[in-house]
Amino acid sequence: MRKQKPVRESFVSMTELVLPNDTNTLNNLMGGRMMHLMDIAAAVSAQRHSNRIVVTASVDNVSFREGIKLGSVVTLEAQVTRAFSSSMEVHINVWAEDIPSGTKVKSNEAFFTFVAVDQSGRPIDVPDALAETPVEQELYDGALRRRQLRLVLAGRLKPDEATELKALFDLA
Amino acid sequence: MRKQKPVRESFVSMTELVLPNDTNTLNNLMGGRMMHLMDIAAAVSAQRHSNRIVVTASVDNVSFREGIKLGSVVTLEAQVTRAFSSSMEVHINVWAEDIPSGTKVKSNEAFFTFVAVDQSGRPIDVPDALAETPVEQELYDGALRRRQLRLVLAGRLKPDEATELKALFDLA
Amino acid sequence: MRKQKPVRESFVSMTELVLPNDTNTLNNLMGGRMMHLMDIAAAVSAQRHSNRIVVTASVDNVSFREGIKLGSVVTLEAQVTRAFSSSMEVHINVWAEDIPSGTKVKSNEAFFTFVAVDQSGRPIDVPDALAETPVEQELYDGALRRRQLRLVLAGRLKPDEATELKALFDLA
Amino acid sequence: MRKQKPVRESFVSMTELVLPNDTNTLNNLMGGRMMHLMDIAAAVSAQRHSNRIVVTASVDNVSFREGIKLGSVVTLEAQVTRAFSSSMEVHINVWAEDIPSGTKVKSNEAFFTFVAVDQSGRPIDVPDALAETPVEQELYDGALRRRQLRLVLAGRLKPDEATELKALFDLA
Amino acid sequence: MRKQKPVRESFVSMTELVLPNDTNTLNNLMGGRMMHLMDIAAAVSAQRHSNRIVVTASVDNVSFREGIKLGSVVTLEAQVTRAFSSSMEVHINVWAEDIPSGTKVKSNEAFFTFVAVDQSGRPIDVPDALAETPVEQELYDGALRRRQLRLVLAGRLKPDEATELKALFDLA
Amino acid sequence: MRKQKPVRESFVSMTELVLPNDTNTLNNLMGGRMMHLMDIAAAVSAQRHSNRIVVTASVDNVSFREGIKLGSVVTLEAQVTRAFSSSMEVHINVWAEDIPSGTKVKSNEAFFTFVAVDQSGRPIDVPDALAETPVEQELYDGALRRRQLRLVLAGRLKPDEATELKALFDLA
Repeated sequence: MRKQKPVRESFVSMTELVLPNDTNTLNNLMGGRMMHLMDIAAAVSAQRHSNRIVVTASVDNVSFREGIKLGSVVTLEAQVTRAFSSSMEVHINVWAEDIPSGTKVKSNEAFFTFVAVDQSGRPIDVPDALAETPVEQELYDGALRRRQLRLVLAGRLKPDEATELKALFDLA
Repeated sequence: MRKQKPVRESFVSMTELVLPNDTNTLNNLMGGRMMHLMDIAAAVSAQRHSNRIVVTASVDNVSFREGIKLGSVVTLEAQVTRAFSSSMEVHINVWAEDIPSGTKVKSNEAFFTFVAVDQSGRPIDVPDALAETPVEQELYDGALRRRQLRLVLAGRLKPDEATELKALFDLA
Repeated sequence: MRKQKPVRESFVSMTELVLPNDTNTLNNLMGGRMMHLMDIAAAVSAQRHSNRIVVTASVDNVSFREGIKLGSVVTLEAQVTRAFSSSMEVHINVWAEDIPSGTKVKSNEAFFTFVAVDQSGRPIDVPDALAETPVEQELYDGALRRRQLRLVLAGRLKPDEATELKALFDLA
Repeated sequence: MRKQKPVRESFVSMTELVLPNDTNTLNNLMGGRMMHLMDIAAAVSAQRHSNRIVVTASVDNVSFREGIKLGSVVTLEAQVTRAFSSSMEVHINVWAEDIPSGTKVKSNEAFFTFVAVDQSGRPIDVPDALAETPVEQELYDGALRRRQLRLVLAGRLKPDEATELKALFDLA
Repeated sequence: MRKQKPVRESFVSMTELVLPNDTNTLNNLMGGRMMHLMDIAAAVSAQRHSNRIVVTASVDNVSFREGIKLGSVVTLEAQVTRAFSSSMEVHINVWAEDIPSGTKVKSNEAFFTFVAVDQSGRPIDVPDALAETPVEQELYDGALRRRQLRLVLAGRLKPDEATELKALFDLA
Repeated sequence: MRKQKPVRESFVSMTELVLPNDTNTLNNLMGGRMMHLMDIAAAVSAQRHSNRIVVTASVDNVSFREGIKLGSVVTLEAQVTRAFSSSMEVHINVWAEDIPSGTKVKSNEAFFTFVAVDQSGRPIDVPDALAETPVEQELYDGALRRRQLRLVLAGRLKPDEATELKALFDLA
């Protein structure tokens, strides 16, 4: 049986200041820079779960709402939700904090998938992810549905075999 | 009636060398850096279509296949597929080229959505996108389905109202 | 009476990957890059305490022990210890984590001092710092002695007026 | 006989956004940053012609006209003009595009020379360059004259042996 | 009469460590990065002579000889040679130092031209350059010939009007 | 007997332009960036004294006075003061120059300590430092007192054994 590891051990908190080169001509953080930060935070989380080198396998749909101003503080929190053989799904929450006004708003939420590899880049198994709280369990349960959507979008699973995913539409 | 603009006028080709700081400990381009490049190429394409400042609104699911080695040449090609009021979907193809071996492989494909804004950041209408070739028409037609998927995933459209998207599953 | 604010509200956790450009020819994180990261983490902490723009006023003696390898994960934790009118002392702990071996060692500890300023750069008062745990109280108490040492080293206080500091030597 | 390769196979198009760190205090792209971009675009072109690692051997006189504003889109197009044993001359055109006004002006033109090297840094022969259009032929023909000027300026050719170059002055 | 200023007051010495991101796949400093450093050193020199904002107007032919290894120390020395109304020619010498072997070799030499501008970017006169040593005088005297070559190459002076430049060929 | 080397041979002058990414929201150079520059200048100085790879061992208290504006020229001068077996103390002076006003003010002064190491990172002896001027001698003499303070602050020397340091307080 595979080793189990609590998902909370993969928790990562990362804080960044929005600097001039991170911004567009409206002085807002650029979407590409935000995804770069998400990728680093999520990769560290997946490394902590697997104690391995990890490579980004996929990024789920990410939406960008409000612009984040130059000088803001961006906080990213990443945690593994579930593992499948050599791959791990990581959930990331991002907050933007405007210091003078003292406001902190949730800016983004995303799911990244990483694969653990050995020194020559070959996939290698990772411990199972153990959810211990209701929130962790909900993220764990949804991971299978999101995985099917990824496989359908990548043309590697037929839509009618995506049983979990179909439930999403049946509910509607 | 809204002004029309051929999508080919928004075509962008961008070439980058993979430098040490772009790589992970396997000496491969990091996923976050790749998304940063995609975001810049796609933003320039959306700017060319709209002649406006644009902000990233969303990124669709992106898959990463083979690692791209340090020293490789990365070529990104971006072009608007379709416009909806103030938003534009941009299609991006990425190739990785290994100079010594002379091999060039397709590495990624992605769809980014941008919103055109005025100087105070308010959304502003853009020209309609005019597809002129069969490939452009196919990307144009699929844009509606991808848009519905984005809205469903963002919780802003009920799955049973996503008529285009449902067709995807009926086909299976 | 000045407003009081618990020091824990200024807590900042920051996680960084050591990338190639951060390293020297031994592939270890450069001391200057480490201080740059410390400065950002500590500045965010001082901003959270004061809800103001802050500028670095001084850095106490910092020692560097073991080298931190390329690819390591560096975690910085910063928290305000005490405030004096417009200045705040921030305590920073740094850990270095080697993912493959799963080891995490304390790498550095430092004290930075920041001054809160208004938009034209003039010093402005900040809330008092409220220590709530024994560890926070100990850092709060030591802040006065460290402040005297800073003033003596900067030639702005005569050594024999540094009553708290002298106690350090009397103890010996 | 040396292998021939059409120069169009070395064509490179590179697009860059002018970001804050690229600019001087007038908010214009700095000359040194522009040359850095030219060097990367031209190096990729020389790599494509030679399928080798290349090193910059020389840069001809470059003039800078209008300032290029922060937020502009810079497009560089590079193509090999001619090869001499292990060296290749690359021609680079640069355009600056101001998105809101929709204007695109030619900003610079330059010639860089690269040498193809093996893994230990020793020069190695490259294919002959085959010009196929009148424009390519004109650039090919002028390459010899520019090469003589480089050699004279570097003190490696006596002016009266620079037959092609002298013609330039006789014409006047 | 225009104010005169000794050229030695514009002397700038700049020292840089070659870091990983500055290097190509042979671990040598890239030519474009070297030109970026030259541009900054020369701009500071021209700023010191003119006490003005300066913009790069042109770069003369630059040759690159030996590769400069990762970890090397690069020293740039820049000094104004002569001023013409609003423009200044700056001479730059570059040395590369290999610390373990203790060797220091001259790596490059170049001439950059800058124009002094006011806050709205319009050219503005600068003090005359006063050469005080034989070396400074020789650089001062050659500046006119180099200026004519630049004008001929830019198509702004007919070769047979470039009297100083022609002398170069007559001597041969 | 250990080899002696004049301290002036380790002199380093480094000039930097303050660019947008180096600044905080007041458009002033960030303290952490300044320390990064100090670390590089001082490391090059220690490398010149020892002809070895060096690693930062400690930084003494650094004070920051006036803000340094975007576009300013920062000049750092570093020189070894004294060597102890494998370690070297380096003294750094920093000036900030505002070009339009022609003012140049001393901004900072600091002492960094480096250890010379071999390729595997083990400490290795360096030449003795030879002071040749009164200023160099004064810095040489003070080095022992500063070293004792560092050891006391690091908990590696009892205050009553810090004979040189105690003199500082006796004088008061």
